[in-house]
Amino acid sequence: MTAVNSVSTIKTIEWTSEGVALIDQRLLPLKEEYKICRNYEEVAEAIRTMVVRGAPAIGVAAAMGIALGVQQSKAKTAEMLRSEFDRICDTLAATRPTAVNLYWAIGRMRDLFEKLLSEGAPIEAIPTRLQEQAQRILDEDIEANKAMGHYGAALVPDGKTVMTICNAGALATAGYGTALGVIRSAICEGKNVNVIALETRPFLQGARLTAWELQKDGIPTTLITDNMAGHFLHAGGIGCVVVGADRIAANGDVANKIGTYSVAVLAKENGVPFYVAAPLSTLDLNIPSGEKIPIEQRAASEVTQIQGVEIAPRGIAVNNPAFDVTPHEYITAIVTERGIARPPYEDTLRRLKNLAC
Amino acid sequence: MTAVNSVSTIKTIEWTSEGVALIDQRLLPLKEEYKICRNYEEVAEAIRTMVVRGAPAIGVAAAMGIALGVQQSKAKTAEMLRSEFDRICDTLAATRPTAVNLYWAIGRMRDLFEKLLSEGAPIEAIPTRLQEQAQRILDEDIEANKAMGHYGAALVPDGKTVMTICNAGALATAGYGTALGVIRSAICEGKNVNVIALETRPFLQGARLTAWELQKDGIPTTLITDNMAGHFLHAGGIGCVVVGADRIAANGDVANKIGTYSVAVLAKENGVPFYVAAPLSTLDLNIPSGEKIPIEQRAASEVTQIQGVEIAPRGIAVNNPAFDVTPHEYITAIVTERGIARPPYEDTLRRLKNLAC
Repeated sequence: MTAVNSVSTIKTIEWTSEGVALIDQRLLPLKEEYKICRNYEEVAEAIRTMVVRGAPAIGVAAAMGIALGVQQSKAKTAEMLRSEFDRICDTLAATRPTAVNLYWAIGRMRDLFEKLLSEGAPIEAIPTRLQEQAQRILDEDIEANKAMGHYGAALVPDGKTVMTICNAGALATAGYGTALGVIRSAICEGKNVNVIALETRPFLQGARLTAWELQKDGIPTTLITDNMAGHFLHAGGIGCVVVGADRIAANGDVANKIGTYSVAVLAKENGVPFYVAAPLSTLDLNIPSGEKIPIEQRAASEVTQIQGVEIAPRGIAVNNPAFDVTPHEYITAIVTERGIARPPYEDTLRRLKNLAC
Repeated sequence: MTAVNSVSTIKTIEWTSEGVALIDQRLLPLKEEYKICRNYEEVAEAIRTMVVRGAPAIGVAAAMGIALGVQQSKAKTAEMLRSEFDRICDTLAATRPTAVNLYWAIGRMRDLFEKLLSEGAPIEAIPTRLQEQAQRILDEDIEANKAMGHYGAALVPDGKTVMTICNAGALATAGYGTALGVIRSAICEGKNVNVIALETRPFLQGARLTAWELQKDGIPTTLITDNMAGHFLHAGGIGCVVVGADRIAANGDVANKIGTYSVAVLAKENGVPFYVAAPLSTLDLNIPSGEKIPIEQRAASEVTQIQGVEIAPRGIAVNNPAFDVTPHEYITAIVTERGIARPPYEDTLRRLKNLAC
C-alpha cells in the first residue's frame, strides 16, 4: 500500500530575486533542474521552447515575464514605459498561439498597467504592483485548481481507473493541476482511484511529466502509449477520462493536446464519460466554435527525433500539429472553478463565466 | 515529381549457404544490416526479439528455421529425426503467440515432413525437400501479396491519402507487402496516392520501417504520431485506411498491431473506409471471434525507453500489449489473395478459404 500525498509540492514557477524560476520540463524526469529567466526575453524563449508548458502555467509565466520586463525598464516617462510595455507584451504573446490563457494573463497585466497610468501612479511604484498582480494570478490559479478538484472529484467513480492524456497537473499550472487536481481531490476524499497516463507523443508529457508527478505523490499510475487508449477503453475498468484544455470555444468545443479528440471519440464509443477540467481563463467567448481556434504547428524534429535520437529516415515529410479540437458533442461535462458545465455549453459556460466570484 | 518504383527490391528474408539471412529490423532506418541465423535457435531468437516481424514474414522465417534445423540434424533414424523435428517446431512456435501465420507455416512444414516419412523417403533426402517447401512458402507469399495488391487497388480512391499503421509492407512479408502492396498496386495502376504513416509506438514500425520502405520506393509519405490519427481522419482528405493483420477470427474480427482498433473506430466515426489486407494464412477459422485471440504482452522497457534513452520515471508501471482486436463491424472489407471479403465475414471468409486456388 503506497502512501498517497495528495497535495503536490512541485513548484512549477516562482518569482525569485534573480528572476523567474521555472522547473525545466524538457529535462524531466531524468533531471530536476530550475531555469532562471533573467529578463522577459528569456521568459518568452522558455515558453516557446517548452521549458514551461500547459495553458495555465504559460499564462502565469507570461505575467511574471511582464513584471520582470517592467522592473528592468529604464523608462523615465509614462509614455516611454507604455511603449516598452507594449513591446514586452507583444514578445510574450508571440510565443505560442493556441492556449488562450496566455492572452488572458497578458490582458490582466495590461488592465492593471493602464489603470495605474490613468490614475497617475508614480512610475517607480508600477513594477511592484505588476509583480503583485503576477503573484495574484499564480495564487488564484492554485485556488481555481483546488475548486475544480472539489467539483470534479464528485464525477470520478470510486474503485475505477481514470485515463488522462498529456500533463494537466501541477507542472501545467501554478500548482495542484486541472485534470490531475480532480484526481488528487478524488483521492483526498477517500476514493480508490488509479490512473492510466498516455505517454503523449511527440513531446511525451504523459511519460515524462504526468507519470513523474503522480509517482511523486504516490498515486498508482500505469503508463501506456497513445495508440493503446482505445484498447483499454474497450477492455473496461476505466471509470472516466479527465483532460485539461488549452482553449474552449463558446459552444464547448475544446482545443487540447493532440490526441485528445481521438480519446474522446473512443471514450464515447465505449460509453466512458469524458470530462474536461479547465479554469474559466481557458474559455474564449470570442470564438464561437472550435474550427476558429488557431492550431500551433511545431517542428518536424519533435516527431523524427526523441531526445536527440533519430527514429525516422532523413528527409521524410512530417505533420506536427500540437493540438486538436474535440467537438463538444463528445464532452460529457466541463469542470471549472465555479462549478460544472453540462450541455448546452453555449448557455452553461457563459453563465459560469459571468457569475460573480 | 518523384519517380515511383512500385516494386520494392528489399529482401526481408533469404536462404543462404551460411544460414537464414534477415534484414535486422531493429536497426532500420539508421543501419541496413543483415543478420545471419546459423541455426534454428538463432531464427527463434530473431523472431522473439523482432529482428524479423510482421505476421507473414514470421511464418516464412519459421519455415526456413525448420529447414535449417533439419539440415543440421545428426539424426540417423526417422524416429530420432521426428523427435528432433518436434523440438525444432516447439521452439519456433513458442516465440510469439498472436500471429497465426507462424503456426500455419509450421503446420505446412510438418505436413510435408510427415508425408515424406510415411512415404519412406530416405532421411538424407528430407532436408532438401523441406528447404524447397520453405522457399515455396516465401515465393507464394510474394505472389499472394501481388494478388492482394491487384484486388485491393480497386478500393483505393484516386487523388487521396491512404492512412496506415505499423508496417504491413515488404519488411513484414516475404516481399511487396499486404497493406503497402495494395498501395504499391494502386500507384502501379496510375492512381495518384500519398500515404500517412502512423509512427506506431512503442516499436516505431511506422516511423522506422514504413517511412523508410515507402521513401525508398519514392511513394510520397507523411509521418505522424499515433495520437494524430483522429485529427487527420476528421480533417478530411483521407480516402481510406489500409492495414495488415496478425490473425483474423472466423467472424472477421482482426488482431493487428496495437492502435489498429483506435484507428478503425476513428475511421468509422468520420466515414472513412477501413480495409484489412492479409493472406488467407492469417485467417484462423478455429477461433470464432476476436476475444479468443491470444494477445502478446511485451517488455515494459519498450515503452519506457526508446533506442536505449529513458523517457519515463524509473519504476513506473507499464502495460504493453503488442496487439489489439478490431471487431468486424468496423471493417469495411478484407482483401485476400483470392478476392475481397465483405460482411457477413463468417460466410465470405470461409468461402474464400475453401476456394480452389
